[in-house]
Formats: sequence, C-alpha cells, structure tokens
Amino acid sequence: MTESGVLEALSEKSDSRILLAVMDGLGDIDIPELGGMTPLEAARTPNLDALVRESAVGAHIPVARGITPGSGPAHLALFGYDPLEYVIGRGTLAALGIGFDLREGDLAARINFCTVDEDGIVTDRRAGRIATDLNGELVDRISSALTPIEGVEVFLRTVKEHRACVIFRGEGLSDRLGDTDPGLVGRPPEPVAATDPGAERSAGVVGSFLRQASEVLASESRANMILLRGFSSFHPLRSMEERFRLSPAATALYPMYRGVASLVGMRLFDADPQDLRGETEACRRALDAGHDFVFLHHKPSDSAGEDGDHARKISAIEEFDTAMEKIMDLGFDVIAVTGDHSTPCPMRLHSWHPVPVLINGGPQRKGYCASFCEREALLKGSLGVFRAVELMPLLLASGGKLGKYGA
Amino acid sequence: MTESGVLEALSEKSDSRILLAVMDGLGDIDIPELGGMTPLEAARTPNLDALVRESAVGAHIPVARGITPGSGPAHLALFGYDPLEYVIGRGTLAALGIGFDLREGDLAARINFCTVDEDGIVTDRRAGRIATDLNGELVDRISSALTPIEGVEVFLRTVKEHRACVIFRGEGLSDRLGDTDPGLVGRPPEPVAATDPGAERSAGVVGSFLRQASEVLASESRANMILLRGFSSFHPLRSMEERFRLSPAATALYPMYRGVASLVGMRLFDADPQDLRGETEACRRALDAGHDFVFLHHKPSDSAGEDGDHARKISAIEEFDTAMEKIMDLGFDVIAVTGDHSTPCPMRLHSWHPVPVLINGGPQRKGYCASFCEREALLKGSLGVFRAVELMPLLLASGGKLGKYGA
Repeated sequence: MTESGVLEALSEKSDSRILLAVMDGLGDIDIPELGGMTPLEAARTPNLDALVRESAVGAHIPVARGITPGSGPAHLALFGYDPLEYVIGRGTLAALGIGFDLREGDLAARINFCTVDEDGIVTDRRAGRIATDLNGELVDRISSALTPIEGVEVFLRTVKEHRACVIFRGEGLSDRLGDTDPGLVGRPPEPVAATDPGAERSAGVVGSFLRQASEVLASESRANMILLRGFSSFHPLRSMEERFRLSPAATALYPMYRGVASLVGMRLFDADPQDLRGETEACRRALDAGHDFVFLHHKPSDSAGEDGDHARKISAIEEFDTAMEKIMDLGFDVIAVTGDHSTPCPMRLHSWHPVPVLINGGPQRKGYCASFCEREALLKGSLGVFRAVELMPLLLASGGKLGKYGA
Repeated sequence: MTESGVLEALSEKSDSRILLAVMDGLGDIDIPELGGMTPLEAARTPNLDALVRESAVGAHIPVARGITPGSGPAHLALFGYDPLEYVIGRGTLAALGIGFDLREGDLAARINFCTVDEDGIVTDRRAGRIATDLNGELVDRISSALTPIEGVEVFLRTVKEHRACVIFRGEGLSDRLGDTDPGLVGRPPEPVAATDPGAERSAGVVGSFLRQASEVLASESRANMILLRGFSSFHPLRSMEERFRLSPAATALYPMYRGVASLVGMRLFDADPQDLRGETEACRRALDAGHDFVFLHHKPSDSAGEDGDHARKISAIEEFDTAMEKIMDLGFDVIAVTGDHSTPCPMRLHSWHPVPVLINGGPQRKGYCASFCEREALLKGSLGVFRAVELMPLLLASGGKLGKYGA
C-alpha cells in the first residue's frame, strides 16, 4: 500500500476542528543587518512563543531537499497532496492565479507579449515589460476581434506587465502542445506543434487564435506578437473531503491561494476588511458553517521577502502574531502555524530552506522550543524534519481523525 | 534497486549476535501528573541510562508520520519488513494472536458472537460481551456439531469475551469475501458474498459453516448468531533467514507476538517463569542453540498505557531496566532497546508518536544523550528520526552483517 493510500483509508470523521495558518514565505536565512538573525527570530512574537512552548514543533521540507517550490506545489503539499504526484500545469496555475473559474477539460496557457522585427524574429521576449494598463487594452482589443474557432470558447486575461493567460474551452482539447516561445531572442516563434497525434485539432485551434491575435497586434510598436507556453488541461483534483473526510474552508486575500484552495475542494470565505481581522472573522464564519478544517493565508511575509525588505517582513510576522490572540479564541481544537516555503530577504526569491511549523492541541509530545523560529523548530522541536506532505497526517492524527493501521 | 533489495543483497553471515529488546507501547507524551514528564522520563532506569551514554540513539516512526500502527505492522517494521508492503490480514492476525499454527493457504476470519431478534435483525453486535467461559462452551458445541464441508477442515477458536476466530483449511480457498458483519445494529447480517468470481466456492463453504453455527446457537438468549469479518488467506512471509541470513529466535509471553515472530521465521523459546527472568533465560538458551538474532518482548508497558496507568507503566519500565543487568551479561555483541509504538497513558491507545531506540555495541557514533527517553532520543541522539523499518539495516551493519554497496 502507498502511504497516501493508507492515509485515505484510515481517515475518519471526528468533531475536532483544525486550523492551518500559513504565513507565506515565512522561512528565512541569516541576515547580517539583524546580527545574523532571521526576521522570525528578530520579530517580537509573544503569542507564538507562548503557543510554541505548548506545541509539537518541527521543520518541513516543502517538496524535497534543495528544491525550491512555487506557491502551487508548496500549498498542495501543506494540504496533503504530494507535489511530486499532483502536478498542476503552469497554464492552469496562471489561470487559478487570476481567479479564473476553470472547468474540467479547459486548456490554459501562459502568454508573454513580445517584440518581433520585420522578419518575424523575436527581439524582446517581454516586449519591454509593457505597463499592465497597455496589457489590458491589448487583451480587450484581441478579445473583441476574435472570431469563433471550431466551437471553442476563448478567454483571454491580463496578468501583469507583459504576462497574460488564455483559456480554451471546448470538447476534446488536448494539452500535448509545444511552447511557441523559442526561449531566446534572435529566432522566430515556434509554430504551434502537437506533441501527440491526438492534439492535432487543438494545435489548429490555438494556431487560429495566434493568427488572429498577431493581426490585431501587427500595428503595435513593442507588443506586436505573443508567445505561448505551459499548455495544460484542467482536471479537478480529488477533494480533501473525498480523500480525508474533511469539510474544508479557506480564507485568503490573493486569487492564487484562493485558486489552489478551490482546487482541493475548500469552500472560500471572503475577508472583510481585507486583512487579518477580516480573515479571522472569516474563520469564525467557516466554523459556524460547520467546517472542520480551515486554511488561513497571510501574504505580506512573502511579499516583503520578495522585496528583500526584512523590516517589513518582521512587521508582517508581528501583525500575524497579534492576530493570533483572537484566532486562538475561535475554538479550534488543533492549530498549526507554518509557512508554505522560505522567501529569504537576502535572496528576494523563494528558496528550498526548511520551514518552521508548530502543532498545538491534541495529544502532543513537546520538545524544548522556547520561541517560534527556524533554528529552534528544527533543533529543539519534538517533530524533527519532515516533508510538508506529512503535515496533514499529523494534523488529522492530532484531531483524532485517523484510525489505526492494522491490528 | 529498492532499499530492501539492496539490504537483502548485501546481508551476510557473521559471528556477532544481536538482541532486539522491545518494551511494547514504550513511547508516551507529556503527563501533567508527572510534571510534564513521560513515564520513561520519570522512571528510574540506571542501567538503560548507563547504556544510552555508550549507544547510538534515535527515534523511530513505526509506519509513517501521523499513522498509528497495530501491533502486527509495528513489529513487522522492527523486524525489517516494511508494513506498507507486508500487509497481514486481520483474520490472520487474530489466528496468530491465539497461537494457532497457520499453514499456507489457510483462510482465517474474526468472529463476533452477536444477538439477533426474531426477524434476524442484529440488536447487539457483541452479544452483551458474553463471558469468555461461555464463549468457550459455544465454540465447543459448534465444533462438535459441525459436519464436513466439501473436504474443508474448520477450526473454531475462542479469543476473548464475544470474540472468536475461525480457520478454514483446504485446497483453493480464497479470501475475496465480504464481511457478514453489517457494521451497525438494526440490520440483518450480510450474506457471505464473493468479491471475486474465484471466491464463489469459498463463499459456499463459509455459508455452510454459518448455517450450521446458527442452528447450534438458535436456542441461546444472547449469543444466538455470529458475524464474520476480516477474511484473509495465510501466506508465510519470506523468512529473516532468507532475507537477512540471520538465524532468528524469539521469546515473548503473549501469543500475538509469538505469532508475528513465527511469521518471519523466528524460532520460539519458552520463558519459565513467565516473566523477564524466564525470558532472559530463554535468550541464553537461544544463544546456546546458535541463534544470532534474538527478539525479546516485554508487554506490561503497553498494557499499563492502555489502562492509562502511568505509575504502572513506570514500574513496567523499571522492571525491564532491572532485567537489563542480566541481559547485558548474556554475551550479545549488539543490543537494541526500543518500543514497537507509543501507547500514551493520557490516550489509553496506541499512537503515532516517535519511539526512542538505542543501539549498543558495534562501531557507533554517540550523541549527547544522558538518559534514555523520548525527547533526548530524538533531539540529542546521533541517529535522528527514521522509519522503524530502517532499524534492521542499522542492526545488521552494527553486527558486521552487511557488505558494501558498489565498489
């Protein structure tokens, strides 16, 4: 039997209620300006520190040692979906990221506006990073000019700067299509090519879309062409309810995380106001509605890391710590606090470094942690280091939601 | 190559002798009445503490993070058999648990005596938990009344209270049979149903047994019917001798553990008296008989945990510690002391929490442990956290019984 097969077979309903609170990009590395501390070590977090002393604590590896995850795989892992097994295509992730309501079989791809010369050679793969406003105008112009393509609906959406995405909706579309992005300048875009005989019709549909779009863009100076990559068909995942018998809910301010939460069947609760106060209230409503698993997402720690701003990352963490006071009173039986991955300020990027995690509530063996931080979590916590996908079994066990394996 | 394939390929004979001493249900969690200590932390264990300072120490995860094992899978893991790969059916375990001498192909199932009303509806799935004596009488009456069923031998055995087990012995029996236990009261027992066309004949045999049994029981007030579940065919596992070139022996007072030991080819040595003194003597006889691997099982730590009695668990551990003095003089080259799983007193159940383990003897790198307990094992031991199935390679390596992988 596989580990996930065992997990699903043993999952059972119980009355306990579990919170998974994620500070995005929480983990960090030694920051010289902080005397070698991480933002989490430097932050004043009295609530988390009090919690950690009564918790099982450890550090999780989002995907595998040395592997830096995107937000999609990192969150899937926390939700109990092995990101090496459950792969979400880049097109799908782009569509989820802007909150597009994907349906089974939808074919999505990422778009770059680019610049080509009079010979059709790509001279700038990002069209000089055009403004998002111009992106929006171009998307509107292409969308209104589009004529029907073999009964396939086409949805074109702005993402940001030179990035957009496109979704094709119709019967029997295949994602076995190669990128048209040549990957470097000095070459023309690749033609849309089926990498599987069953994808010929889809290649035709996408090719027709490309021709129509390039006609609209021909008069543009910079964004006079588009490149497509990351074709992926959308197939809903087996839900957390189906796999773990949970009734899951989520509150997240950013479309990407709402998208990934929806993907595993979480019901979304809006936050009002759009901050941790609103998210705390959303948790309360989720519990009132009978949900027994709630995912709360806090973004600012990641954004600060991406900007290399450790002072702002400290503030983001302290803001979360303050919110914990009310969150702890909501009536959850098990509370997990962690990040989805590390976003070290000195790197201004996601990274592979282990992420601290605490589990409070349920029958736990405590370790020696006195404060919630990367180093203590790994070196003084009772859980040790484990793969992020192993968090869900620990949460289910803590909530009395897992039966015994064998007699 | 798989990890277990490598292990088997590299296993080789050596003169060293290994002891695997298991305190059942050893691991525990923080107990408020003990000032937050576990029974192992609270117990006075001078011998184990002296040993631990000269040992490689770590914590093992019986099956997987968050997964609570039954005794069967937990022991298989310690014996080097991945419990996710080697699955023992519940019927088989029940038969092993009462020391029944299973043979290849035997079909075993668990029995509950139950109560049905005049319409055949189950009103009590446990027949009011009848006394074991009555159980024994009923088993005898059914056994003597049984008439031959298509050349299949039927062995009916009392387990305890309302529980019994039945073993069918004959050619070509299949375990692809559904439970007759409806799982809840207010419904009639399910008919015996083949879940695979090849099991039709077996369904007929079991059905005939059921009819005969129900006729005998018809006049009973409470235990007037039986329910069957957990059908499983017995297939001996590849032995430890075959896999690891060991000549393994075991001493255990409880039939269940003797059964699992037999399953992997251990030769059983009886204890006289039926306690740790007797088991120590059994170890000596096993060594005298030339065995190079001995499994010693100590049950009281688990029973105390199941009863939620931390004082008794402490005594059980201290009793084992006292016995270690003589055990260490028997001449083993490598001694491992661990538990099969945790049975925390506050839970009164098996649990998923990691279990401390020490390996003494052979070339070891020591850590910083000063006493043998859950927290130090995980956080100060030189082995870290690992899956229980990884213990056997460590023992074989410690005993010089594993060759090099590759050149």
